[in-house]
Amino acid sequence: MKKETTISAVFEETISRMKGDGVILLAGDPPNPMTIGWGTIGYIWGRKIFTILVRPSRFTHALMEKSKEFTVNILGDEFRRQLSLCGTKSGRNTDKIKECGFTLENGICVKTPFIRESHIHYECRIVQENELLPEKIAADIAKRYYPAGDFHTVYYGEILGIFKCSPTL
Amino acid sequence: MKKETTISAVFEETISRMKGDGVILLAGDPPNPMTIGWGTIGYIWGRKIFTILVRPSRFTHALMEKSKEFTVNILGDEFRRQLSLCGTKSGRNTDKIKECGFTLENGICVKTPFIRESHIHYECRIVQENELLPEKIAADIAKRYYPAGDFHTVYYGEILGIFKCSPTL
Repeated sequence: MKKETTISAVFEETISRMKGDGVILLAGDPPNPMTIGWGTIGYIWGRKIFTILVRPSRFTHALMEKSKEFTVNILGDEFRRQLSLCGTKSGRNTDKIKECGFTLENGICVKTPFIRESHIHYECRIVQENELLPEKIAADIAKRYYPAGDFHTVYYGEILGIFKCSPTL
Repeated sequence: MKKETTISAVFEETISRMKGDGVILLAGDPPNPMTIGWGTIGYIWGRKIFTILVRPSRFTHALMEKSKEFTVNILGDEFRRQLSLCGTKSGRNTDKIKECGFTLENGICVKTPFIRESHIHYECRIVQENELLPEKIAADIAKRYYPAGDFHTVYYGEILGIFKCSPTL
């Protein structure tokens, strides 16, 4: 059973999972999972915000543009295989939900579902998006991450709910 | 004496101060302090990132464009007067450092100084900047925060160091 929680309570695990095997971004109808390792969390416009980055070439990009929503799902070490699969295969030609054996549950604050197997998940609506600007990026970052262009779109998700598994007594 | 620390160790206090009386952004040469309440922290391009927002009409905006660096200074409750002053007066016609009685110390990782009276501070170099896009902003946010335009610039600061006071034994 999941209960609503605060960003401070889950920030450390979220960032540490992103830096490790990644977390799963879920967007679209039908929903497609994609592993991400980059994002920021904070407070803008008096709201809790989760920013995430998606390259325009990704299948998820068109899904985000259409649904204007997403969920971010934090999974444990036992899902390493699934995190790798969702980071390497494309939803254009793979049913990644089926291959991963994930169960989807209806979102509580958004229409996009979350992954039942996640022990933490965020539900977000997109309130702003920006294309990274090639002329404004630091040279060392451009060289390493954008040799072929395809600069990320940054999606600003207003966090409508954060839910965490709580042990049953 | 300040020691280097991690984002996880200071995230909660940073966000809670931002939501409260604010934190102080310091940029420029000579440096100008400005109180901010919005920002996000996380991990992009394999680096620790602090994003902060500044409207183009602000004195600090031109300073950020020129110096390409900033520090974020977290101050305690006893600095409420200074936080209010740095959020309401402009550096164009006020020496806010002098009025606040702040002491500046040389940055450890950047040329921009930090405020000695802060118990936590971040040192950042700007690695990307974006203008918020009017056509992509949620209608409720546009109506409340941008009735006159003046959409924020988002600065992506690579966090080169985070320093926190540690009690002496």
